[in-house]
Amino acid sequence: MTSDPRITQVLQKIVPADQQVRESAWKKMNSLIKPPGSLGRLEECAVQYVSARGDLNAKVQKPSLLTFAGDHGIAEEGVSITSQDVTTLMVKCMSMGGAGINVLTRHEGMIHHVVDVGMAQPCPFKNIIHRRVANGTRNFTKGPAMTETQCADAIVAGMEETQKLIDAGSTLVGTGEMGIGNTTPSAALYSVYLQLTPEKVCGCGTGVSSEVIRKKVQVVKKGIEVNQDLIAKGPFETLQSVGGLEIAAITGMILQAASQKVPVLVDGYISSAAAVAAIRMNPAVLDYCFFSHLSGDLGHGQAMAALGIKPLLDLGMRLGEGTGAALACNLVEASVKILAEMMTFEQAGIIL
Amino acid sequence: MTSDPRITQVLQKIVPADQQVRESAWKKMNSLIKPPGSLGRLEECAVQYVSARGDLNAKVQKPSLLTFAGDHGIAEEGVSITSQDVTTLMVKCMSMGGAGINVLTRHEGMIHHVVDVGMAQPCPFKNIIHRRVANGTRNFTKGPAMTETQCADAIVAGMEETQKLIDAGSTLVGTGEMGIGNTTPSAALYSVYLQLTPEKVCGCGTGVSSEVIRKKVQVVKKGIEVNQDLIAKGPFETLQSVGGLEIAAITGMILQAASQKVPVLVDGYISSAAAVAAIRMNPAVLDYCFFSHLSGDLGHGQAMAALGIKPLLDLGMRLGEGTGAALACNLVEASVKILAEMMTFEQAGIIL
Repeated sequence: MTSDPRITQVLQKIVPADQQVRESAWKKMNSLIKPPGSLGRLEECAVQYVSARGDLNAKVQKPSLLTFAGDHGIAEEGVSITSQDVTTLMVKCMSMGGAGINVLTRHEGMIHHVVDVGMAQPCPFKNIIHRRVANGTRNFTKGPAMTETQCADAIVAGMEETQKLIDAGSTLVGTGEMGIGNTTPSAALYSVYLQLTPEKVCGCGTGVSSEVIRKKVQVVKKGIEVNQDLIAKGPFETLQSVGGLEIAAITGMILQAASQKVPVLVDGYISSAAAVAAIRMNPAVLDYCFFSHLSGDLGHGQAMAALGIKPLLDLGMRLGEGTGAALACNLVEASVKILAEMMTFEQAGIIL
Repeated sequence: MTSDPRITQVLQKIVPADQQVRESAWKKMNSLIKPPGSLGRLEECAVQYVSARGDLNAKVQKPSLLTFAGDHGIAEEGVSITSQDVTTLMVKCMSMGGAGINVLTRHEGMIHHVVDVGMAQPCPFKNIIHRRVANGTRNFTKGPAMTETQCADAIVAGMEETQKLIDAGSTLVGTGEMGIGNTTPSAALYSVYLQLTPEKVCGCGTGVSSEVIRKKVQVVKKGIEVNQDLIAKGPFETLQSVGGLEIAAITGMILQAASQKVPVLVDGYISSAAAVAAIRMNPAVLDYCFFSHLSGDLGHGQAMAALGIKPLLDLGMRLGEGTGAALACNLVEASVKILAEMMTFEQAGIIL
């Protein structure tokens, strides 16, 4: 584990969600004028949210989402359909408000920022938060993707940008990423953290061929083998070895939010890998995570099943950027209003 | 089939969605700056919406939802956990804004009205649209649930209330219902229309025991047997025989909306049965239906599978009222904005 005090202090602050609030919330939920359990997952979401906040009457305020951008040395192994130019292109699109995540965060009324935490190319675009730690990671088949300092700095960048949102009043934050090649480090992280074979977790990314999937599996295997001594040291070192800068930043986002009792909408395949890293660093993190959607990438289903989690949405999406988290925001907000605003049987008994 | 001109004229107006707009919409969708297909079901929703509207640039305006209330003679067979008093209680709750559907339509920014189309008890509550056709249906194990006129009047009530919403500018409407006992007529309709055994489509309702499920199966079988001659005449007569007043009103809502090229968010178990009735009357209706969510009632999955449909959401909800339709509204709206607002590759090529 890193001894960086910026990270260890946050890790120490993360505690499980409030059990008493959870019990009160279920009691209240079951007093509402509906058959018990008849709102299904919506009921679970509401209870999770208020118990994470530690406040039975918690509302969702100023929901926000960060899209972290980073590049990957592993891209040179030919594991993607496109080149790193596309990371730059997509970040520029986001800076102009024209990417999918811009449309969806606007639609959901979420605050949205893009954070360059490790792109390979220059990022001279407006509306971008500049927190670059390195010009992309190194190829992890030739050694660790990041130095210890780089990995820690990327985590801290995620933490600090998240704290700014929380300071501004956000009580629900969403994760997102942009980085050509980043399904491959995510697959490597799942493989190590969840002890799943690379074959199981290497899915279709955003549309690569079966030949590319075979290559991905080989790359993941080699990466885990080459870095095995460092990986054996723990979850931080695993992230450092085969992760990515934007993935580490998302891990930092989730850790910071959990430490502040702010629930997190975890996006899809890549963000969930970052969440698993955070959970491995402190298992109490799980109480603060809403897994937004099941990615169209088949490996995501394997990873979620290994965690015992059924994501909220299943729409076959595999774009990333935070698009699934943005859509799930609406469900979590709806659920919290159900708990707060529905009439109870007692109230209804009085009115009849 | 009924010869009621108010219904036959609407049925004649329903035509398939615009094939040219569909093709143009897919072309535009695939030109947006994302890998083709990477927004999954969201892409399908957008294309379905604009082709149903017959306008590539269609927006969602003033989305609205109607909750139709009705009672069921079949309730006297003991197929529900509660009595018809609860229909009245819930309608009063809705009139006061305290039911689940009030919370969710407010959250989604939808116009919402409750329509009494056939409650058994008086309905002296404010904010209710009064279109009562009868004081509940008759017990369909003893003959048809409705007379031909009653069934037609209930369909027309749904049509007319829907047309008012459309006249007021709504371009997306949602269905909902409240009626103790109404999973039983819905099961009977699925069984006839989809040729599924009553055992397959009789699920758990809003929480009845396995003994009650066995009773439901028997009641459905008897209802179909007793009314077999009328049922054999067609989809209208099937609805008249074993349906319900609020179910018929929803069928009318869907028919009217489809005839006006207004897509419909079909709620769960009961609303889907009404949708199947509409589809059997005119198969082109299917182009206008968004099946919002998979009900927690297991029979719904059987019915959806028989139709070849995977509903948008799967949250284990089984409350009815329109709650699933309200949540799915957000997805359809999001999808339409994706098509309208995302940048194209061509635009992106220019900016780089």
